Amino acid sequence: MKKPDFSELVRKNIRTLQPYQAKDIRCAVKLDANESPYTLRPAEGLLQRIASAKLNRYPDPEAKGLKKAIARKIGTDTDVILLGNGSDELIYYLIISFGGPVLYPVPTFSMYGIISQALGERHMGVPLDKDYDLNVDKMAASIKKYRPKIIFLSSPNNPTGNCFSSDRILKIIDMAKGLVVLDEAYQPFSSSKGFLPMMKDYNRLVILRTLSKIGLASLRVGYLVADSALIREVDKVRLPFNLNALSQAVAEEALLGSSLRGPVRAIISERERLYEALLNIPGARPYPSEANFIFFKVHDADAVYQKLLMHGVLIRNMNTAVRGALRVTVGTPEENDLFIDAFKKTMGVK
Amino acid sequence: MKKPDFSELVRKNIRTLQPYQAKDIRCAVKLDANESPYTLRPAEGLLQRIASAKLNRYPDPEAKGLKKAIARKIGTDTDVILLGNGSDELIYYLIISFGGPVLYPVPTFSMYGIISQALGERHMGVPLDKDYDLNVDKMAASIKKYRPKIIFLSSPNNPTGNCFSSDRILKIIDMAKGLVVLDEAYQPFSSSKGFLPMMKDYNRLVILRTLSKIGLASLRVGYLVADSALIREVDKVRLPFNLNALSQAVAEEALLGSSLRGPVRAIISERERLYEALLNIPGARPYPSEANFIFFKVHDADAVYQKLLMHGVLIRNMNTAVRGALRVTVGTPEENDLFIDAFKKTMGVK
Repeated sequence: MKKPDFSELVRKNIRTLQPYQAKDIRCAVKLDANESPYTLRPAEGLLQRIASAKLNRYPDPEAKGLKKAIARKIGTDTDVILLGNGSDELIYYLIISFGGPVLYPVPTFSMYGIISQALGERHMGVPLDKDYDLNVDKMAASIKKYRPKIIFLSSPNNPTGNCFSSDRILKIIDMAKGLVVLDEAYQPFSSSKGFLPMMKDYNRLVILRTLSKIGLASLRVGYLVADSALIREVDKVRLPFNLNALSQAVAEEALLGSSLRGPVRAIISERERLYEALLNIPGARPYPSEANFIFFKVHDADAVYQKLLMHGVLIRNMNTAVRGALRVTVGTPEENDLFIDAFKKTMGVK
Repeated sequence: MKKPDFSELVRKNIRTLQPYQAKDIRCAVKLDANESPYTLRPAEGLLQRIASAKLNRYPDPEAKGLKKAIARKIGTDTDVILLGNGSDELIYYLIISFGGPVLYPVPTFSMYGIISQALGERHMGVPLDKDYDLNVDKMAASIKKYRPKIIFLSSPNNPTGNCFSSDRILKIIDMAKGLVVLDEAYQPFSSSKGFLPMMKDYNRLVILRTLSKIGLASLRVGYLVADSALIREVDKVRLPFNLNALSQAVAEEALLGSSLRGPVRAIISERERLYEALLNIPGARPYPSEANFIFFKVHDADAVYQKLLMHGVLIRNMNTAVRGALRVTVGTPEENDLFIDAFKKTMGVK
């Protein structure tokens, strides 16, 4: 075996793949990853459960306890639920099971495109309109032209923070011949009830949810809700033990309790305060948000991002996706104050 | 949207896919899944770490602490290591990155074929010889005919328990034009040192290892060791947060301690006792094992499997893969005694 150049062995779509950038940047105030700022404390009983856990045994492959807790929370049967090691694993499974082309509006969550390319599937972004709502005409034209097997709609949309209009979402569902996957990762922060109630009418509608934004990002638990016949097919490509035992136990306990709700309310309230503060800073243009972050524009996003970092505040630079755009996660009141102070200094506001 | 028949939407290779059967069968004596019978107790310090863990934050995407602990254990740099949510996730990533055809000897671990089919890649099994060692001529013919992008060799092999001859493995590596993935899940129980020392000479050689067989199946931690250039390519298709924070913490702590070694020695010693006991039971034909399980044949495997279950002993029925074959995981001395007693009754031995 001579020294190979791996670029000859690896698939062409992998060679050119720009992977998701997840870097562990240490910073005093971390407002970059749309996490909840509130740490859930495992209850004493839970620690006992972990202390006596059979670490040597494989986890329950069906994660029955956690699935029941989720079904109870969202008011469905367990057979319409598929659990993932984060909802991005479920995006993989959907594209593996149904294939491409994969269509999504842009700007949006980058993983739809990244995973499509990793799997060698065609994928295309259709620009949103000037209010970052769905452009139904453009979507219709792309659906007709590419006949996508899967359409991903993130609503509330990441990074823009808004919900797409319900009537436009319904139009897309009516036009689509394949699946429409509504990624509701940020729904808990929205005034919309989400599309779970529509599942019974539209059975090519797939809903993605996650525990990562509401306080449990460490665990990697996402879930998919869809027609049970679809679940049975996608479940075939799932790794049999995709959810480790500790995440199953902690997530189940958290869902059965009520400790997840208070922080969500606090984040929504802080979001409104943060939005008002940004509105009052000259040179900043914030967009109303239904999520746990705020999308805003400035003249020179790269410079503002770097200056904030020097003040110890990490946010997300979205300048590559949308010129001048930044995204700040809603933190605790103290963190938000630190961000606003640093941002004011950055913008030369007294 | 009319009620769709999902079998029209889902890919053909998924429709016909027979998934891995992981069922949560409750049984007094569980010797079916090649787990360690010894439960690791999390140390007090570790529980404190979990109690104060920031559950709301995403895990370290690079799992630096755990990767360092593994690198120290196997004596490599961290840049030749890729971590997976179990090694089966790494099998997915390898096939996604390099594609098929995928070749492997049979009988072997079923996931190589299942994941290949899930990804729509051609895959073919080449029969082992009568001693369950590699049949070099047949492998050579298949390599020439199919030009596989990846060859999976499980050594020690699951379910047969033997290591393949080193010289035959080396011949396969020399013949292969693509990757040779040596799955060493069971290497800790083997008298072979494994192929890690050969990595420097053969840089299309990929080694898979796991913590699942040595006491930490609950956590889902597998790892891949390969040339750093290969790691960089495969890392692109990895989900950025594929290893949750709790598994990272518990696995790191366990690897830095010494608590994993004693159980491995105990299992090896019990395996020899179990093998001798099976040798002495008329109608049973055990095979020597380098793993934490024993492969054996009986006249009517289905009947023996069912009768053992009625005695409260769960083992693995391999009758579909190899006529008359069963696989029993090495348990604690007490569990092995219970198995032997039940098996004797089943076989009509006093």
